[in-house]
Amino acid sequence: MAVSSGRMPSRGGVRSCTNSRSKTGDPRTMSIHKFTIPELIFGRGSLDYAGVCAKQLGASKIFIVSDPGVEAAGWVDRLMDILRQEGLDFVYCNDVAQNPKDYQVKKGVELYRQSGADVVLALGGGSAMDAAKGIALVASNGGEIKDYEGANQVKDPLPPMVFIPSTMGSESNISQFAVVTDVERRIKMTIISRTLVPNISITDPNLLTTLSRELLLAPLFDALAHAVESYLSPLANPLTEVQSLKGLDLLWRHSRPALATLALDDLEQLTVAGLSSGIAFTNASVGLGHALAHALGGMYDVVHGISHALLLPSVMRYNMPECEAKMAVIGRIIIGERLESDAATAVAGIEALERFREEIGLPARLREVLPDNTMLPKMSHNAAKDICLLTNPRSATWKDILNIYYGAW
Amino acid sequence: MAVSSGRMPSRGGVRSCTNSRSKTGDPRTMSIHKFTIPELIFGRGSLDYAGVCAKQLGASKIFIVSDPGVEAAGWVDRLMDILRQEGLDFVYCNDVAQNPKDYQVKKGVELYRQSGADVVLALGGGSAMDAAKGIALVASNGGEIKDYEGANQVKDPLPPMVFIPSTMGSESNISQFAVVTDVERRIKMTIISRTLVPNISITDPNLLTTLSRELLLAPLFDALAHAVESYLSPLANPLTEVQSLKGLDLLWRHSRPALATLALDDLEQLTVAGLSSGIAFTNASVGLGHALAHALGGMYDVVHGISHALLLPSVMRYNMPECEAKMAVIGRIIIGERLESDAATAVAGIEALERFREEIGLPARLREVLPDNTMLPKMSHNAAKDICLLTNPRSATWKDILNIYYGAW
Repeated sequence: MAVSSGRMPSRGGVRSCTNSRSKTGDPRTMSIHKFTIPELIFGRGSLDYAGVCAKQLGASKIFIVSDPGVEAAGWVDRLMDILRQEGLDFVYCNDVAQNPKDYQVKKGVELYRQSGADVVLALGGGSAMDAAKGIALVASNGGEIKDYEGANQVKDPLPPMVFIPSTMGSESNISQFAVVTDVERRIKMTIISRTLVPNISITDPNLLTTLSRELLLAPLFDALAHAVESYLSPLANPLTEVQSLKGLDLLWRHSRPALATLALDDLEQLTVAGLSSGIAFTNASVGLGHALAHALGGMYDVVHGISHALLLPSVMRYNMPECEAKMAVIGRIIIGERLESDAATAVAGIEALERFREEIGLPARLREVLPDNTMLPKMSHNAAKDICLLTNPRSATWKDILNIYYGAW
Repeated sequence: MAVSSGRMPSRGGVRSCTNSRSKTGDPRTMSIHKFTIPELIFGRGSLDYAGVCAKQLGASKIFIVSDPGVEAAGWVDRLMDILRQEGLDFVYCNDVAQNPKDYQVKKGVELYRQSGADVVLALGGGSAMDAAKGIALVASNGGEIKDYEGANQVKDPLPPMVFIPSTMGSESNISQFAVVTDVERRIKMTIISRTLVPNISITDPNLLTTLSRELLLAPLFDALAHAVESYLSPLANPLTEVQSLKGLDLLWRHSRPALATLALDDLEQLTVAGLSSGIAFTNASVGLGHALAHALGGMYDVVHGISHALLLPSVMRYNMPECEAKMAVIGRIIIGERLESDAATAVAGIEALERFREEIGLPARLREVLPDNTMLPKMSHNAAKDICLLTNPRSATWKDILNIYYGAW
């Protein structure tokens, strides 16, 4: 291979090129991006590979984190059978609540340290997976979970992790995020670190066949929020954008049939939609919607996906002035056509999302789920400090946020 | 989280679900897929992170593989400066040819073993990167490179690898593929193993600014072949398909302006196109086009991307009966509209690709690059044994392949 000379940047640096100019209709200059995901295994029956994957990571004894619901459906027993077939020893921790709490992480760490386990395997929804991340983090790095709040506060590597979601939506099995509630402060702490990306993610759509219709509702809106917010993020890049839009498209086409019949084909497509939006948001992050949902969940323990159902359309309206063209792309996927203008297409998409929320029976107003509105100002201050706000396309003060909460009241 | 009971598959297995049926217009049943990529870092100036990335992988002494062309452009010196700034020691191997040869891998392994290096860093095109993979593979697993021909023949882990492409197109920096020529047999051996996926890939579009227009031609067709063949592969899944099509779209929109002006903005979009199609093909594999190109390159040392320019349109025509709808999706991206039928759209796309080949000055007939046609039967037999044929949408005997070669003669 020969290379022409004469155009090499000066030795001092390779950062700029004076003849750079856009000829392409893509005028923005890209900055440096990272794109990282776990090894993904997905498809019907992939749960069977749990033991093989754990062994591949050097496991001799596995620390299983799951929850009583997944256990009652029989999946924990099934997992244990699979691990036994591979000759693997394990301990089991199921003390995990919806919106996992700091004290649960602490108890899990004690159990982990006593166990002598060398691989963490989470089997469950976002709560079980985030609890497992918290346990793996504190067990390996010491201190308390709140020491790691924010971005890039983790120094030492975590034990190898195999994550198996029992539903879709959280995508904690892909992401560099963990969200744990600080019970004393009544906030959800967001911890972002690439050490939190599991080594291997196994997504078996069969696991969704034991969910009720009702249990699918919140995950669907969590996934919608991931697809939408990652697409609008200032950190979005071409590799994340296609996955955001693929996720949105699959979610929109398969949610109604999945809720109507719980057929495996549709559930499977929803798991792929989740993977797609998960690949997008772990690399492009999320925005204001997650800041608002975290503040709401921290204060009132509202299910995360329900918070998004309540707030996502309002957040999209707030963000629209800063990203009308991208919002129109979202709108076109949702309504299936482009209207006379970007603004009209974008608004029609938001309205269709609101109709979908009503149609599937989710609450539309905060007053339907909260005891009163006295904590809205406090929640607004909390949301204004949430790290996800840094990657929202439009800046927002606590007063802007309070207006959104009141608007959704 | 609660889970409804009564729909749990029998303990004996989770493979099938009797109530499975398609309600979605996506009738196919997905099988189990793997989706794995290295950590990707990309954008202008990302080369500066080479040392930090190597250290992150535990490097104390780095084995650099590059080639005289990249060296002449000044990039090897620049890299060495960056490594020195991080206090890293290194050795340098630049004995790499276009279509790297088995004896070059052997010499590289000797140098690696003498060096005491602990991380392999490739800086170059597909040849330098595939040579580096071959060296890392034989150095860690012993024997000769030909012992690993085929899929999944590698047992032991390789040394950590940081790969930095100096052009786009091969995407060896992402893929689980390495292709090395067996000089005695005059064939290109394809080695497929997830151990060949580098740990970290750094794509800095600045490196493309020292390429001449002529040196961009072959990589463009290699990338086009990756986008097209990964999309048509039976192993394609929704996560790979979006990246195949994004890659194709970016390639098609930015190739002409990039060739016309070599402006950094367009070169940058081509690197993203390469990453996109690389993410796709490392997970979905490629097909007949690569089998034909390998046989041609092994016999006559033809540049890999030029082989694709010669053969890809013919391969697309051959495959069309098995994948007309997908070929129409490709055609629509290329010609920018859908014609009256899938077949018409697909054919128009292939014809546009042929016109593009002519327009940029690439050969259209095998007779323009080969001394004579006496080896076509032997090449057809070699191509019929190529592992890439297993993931082609339409089966092909050696006689089918000979017909394609004659058709392109």
